[in-house]
Amino acid sequence: MAQIAIMGYGTVGAGVFKTLTMNEEAITRRVGEKVSVKRVLDLRDFPGDPAENILTHNFEDILNDPEISVVVETMGGLKPSYPFTKQLLEAGKSVCTSNKELVAEHGVELREIAKAHSVNYLFEASCGGGIPIIRVLNTSLTAEEIEEVTGILNGTTNYILTSMAEEEKEFDVALKEAQQKGYAELHPEADVEGWDACRKIAILSSLAYGKHIGWNGVPTEGITKVDRTDIDYAKALGCRIKLLATSRREENGIWALVAPMMIGKENPLTAVDGVMNAVMVKGNAVGTTMYYGSGAGSLPTASAVCGDVIDCVKSAGTTIRTEYSTENLTLLPVDEVPRPFFVRMKGGEKEAEAAFGPVSHVTKLPGAEGEIGFITGVMPEKEFKKCLTAAEGVISWYRRGKKEEEA
Amino acid sequence: MAQIAIMGYGTVGAGVFKTLTMNEEAITRRVGEKVSVKRVLDLRDFPGDPAENILTHNFEDILNDPEISVVVETMGGLKPSYPFTKQLLEAGKSVCTSNKELVAEHGVELREIAKAHSVNYLFEASCGGGIPIIRVLNTSLTAEEIEEVTGILNGTTNYILTSMAEEEKEFDVALKEAQQKGYAELHPEADVEGWDACRKIAILSSLAYGKHIGWNGVPTEGITKVDRTDIDYAKALGCRIKLLATSRREENGIWALVAPMMIGKENPLTAVDGVMNAVMVKGNAVGTTMYYGSGAGSLPTASAVCGDVIDCVKSAGTTIRTEYSTENLTLLPVDEVPRPFFVRMKGGEKEAEAAFGPVSHVTKLPGAEGEIGFITGVMPEKEFKKCLTAAEGVISWYRRGKKEEEA
Repeated sequence: MAQIAIMGYGTVGAGVFKTLTMNEEAITRRVGEKVSVKRVLDLRDFPGDPAENILTHNFEDILNDPEISVVVETMGGLKPSYPFTKQLLEAGKSVCTSNKELVAEHGVELREIAKAHSVNYLFEASCGGGIPIIRVLNTSLTAEEIEEVTGILNGTTNYILTSMAEEEKEFDVALKEAQQKGYAELHPEADVEGWDACRKIAILSSLAYGKHIGWNGVPTEGITKVDRTDIDYAKALGCRIKLLATSRREENGIWALVAPMMIGKENPLTAVDGVMNAVMVKGNAVGTTMYYGSGAGSLPTASAVCGDVIDCVKSAGTTIRTEYSTENLTLLPVDEVPRPFFVRMKGGEKEAEAAFGPVSHVTKLPGAEGEIGFITGVMPEKEFKKCLTAAEGVISWYRRGKKEEEA
Repeated sequence: MAQIAIMGYGTVGAGVFKTLTMNEEAITRRVGEKVSVKRVLDLRDFPGDPAENILTHNFEDILNDPEISVVVETMGGLKPSYPFTKQLLEAGKSVCTSNKELVAEHGVELREIAKAHSVNYLFEASCGGGIPIIRVLNTSLTAEEIEEVTGILNGTTNYILTSMAEEEKEFDVALKEAQQKGYAELHPEADVEGWDACRKIAILSSLAYGKHIGWNGVPTEGITKVDRTDIDYAKALGCRIKLLATSRREENGIWALVAPMMIGKENPLTAVDGVMNAVMVKGNAVGTTMYYGSGAGSLPTASAVCGDVIDCVKSAGTTIRTEYSTENLTLLPVDEVPRPFFVRMKGGEKEAEAAFGPVSHVTKLPGAEGEIGFITGVMPEKEFKKCLTAAEGVISWYRRGKKEEEA
């Protein structure tokens, strides 16, 4: 029997407890032994809960218990999860986490410590909830040069954008509803400003390209400025506005970006709606692949954590070999990346072409008098921004998420 | 340096050689040592080919070479791939294959032999080409009770059905074009009759549910009877006809089926077009997940084979623990499965309801006079088939790929 502990008995932590109980038979069959939760750490009490009898408020009860070989960290944040994780790894216990903040901030160091102690620090649940994207990058697409990773990695913003597009709601209304349904937090900044998606694309890109990418180097824009009329233009162009977290290998390096983009039928991510997440990975041999599933929620996220726990138990005594270099990667500036842009501005086609050169897909919306929307030619972002500064009457703009050859 | 051999230098075998060369740097970085092809076995000669100098016609050159630790089998068929694979595993060499026929027929035995000799028999490329679905089932969704596996697992038939739907072609014309483009073989029976998809769903279901499912127990229907008007009805109903390979866990067991089905927007597989493949996996914790990519082709399939080779090199000396029981699973008869059906018949709604009870979505197509299409209520297939036998004027019918609660 393998004994584990859970630190943080919130949505995900309680989901881990539930999944291990509910699927005990299948898990035992696959692992070859029973996986049993010996301790649950939380500051709170849970009278009447099935975990009540194994609850502790004292971290030492886990750290110093030689029978506990794997610890689930579902506390979130950096304190005290960072020092706790460090101590556990140093004590020879594997740690499995859903904490993208900690992984993006200290993942490199924690993996090094794990390696030095022949244990594992696994974080499948940190990106894309139940979608097994980390293991796909680490153990499946190993014969590839990865060329691009692009995902809808945040369920809250995707729910809001879907509800704006399909139920014709304004941002504020959609956000309030998402909060009422439990899909958005009371303080939704980390989601709607794109910081959550930013941490996730930094983690995925580090694995994909083999060098560490710091999340604070990734240019990040949220969705708070997206308005209903922008979405109507997108629809009129056969497109959707989605918050994409993306990185791509160019000849001279790799760039990354989180921003709302206008994507069309050519992109399989366009159809990913509501709280669902998806990640598209392009490799130079396999071509385009996509992975789709619940990006959040108690049981889907717990399922990913439990998969990691099972891996740790099965590979006890060894560190699973993956590629996550301690070397830092300097990202290319996004300003150099050429692509078409969508622009919405006051005036007509003449003013548009005067400001941005030849444009296409010129669109006028009923109810939006005196303005047009259009797609520019392909140009590097810095050139586009020069035009933008010089132009008058621009209301909003979005990157059109297409490569030049498809524009 | 790890030395490997390739048996069968056709589309996939040559793709493996090319991928290992093209991505040598990335692979070496991930494995920790170089993976080099020492021998290529084929009956043919390849003058001027990069593999020319390492080509052999003699299997013994591989079998008896102690430096070769991993062998790629991309010969296809059962002879001589079955005895060759057996001998290689018994000689302590791991084997990686794209040969679904051999895996479906003798996979259980070959895995047992591998285990007994502390080597691996891996077959990621046997299902879904470049989509890493085998490893997802074996190593990611390990905390799940899998409830359903449904895939578009054959690129040839999906290309034909897509071209019939989008370019309004008849089956024969679409097939001929697929053959001209190299998407269908000269003898296309294995694809269009559903046998290829059948072998793949048997393999995936065995891994998902943990017991062996023989491919010859899976009821299998192909797409040769699908005609243009059927597809027009599907469109009018907001649906598509897709060749689905599916299996599902019910309270009293598991059933499996390969058949053209009518699916709508509720199913993420509906949008999977052309030669692309996708597999949807539902688990009791993670919910619905989907995996999408190239189901065939030289480099995508080779990428999956190379991923297996890398796994074998990294885990040299041990058998990777996966769940693939030698115990046989007896499938439930599909006749018991309740669902709605689409029926196309002569006459009108009155005749339809007389034969099938209450119906919905009654559709008349311009140009198809004197007939209607409709959806029946939910009923077990055997009950539907009784109605079918008694009914007069039925032209065609399809299973509506929906669960009762969504009907």
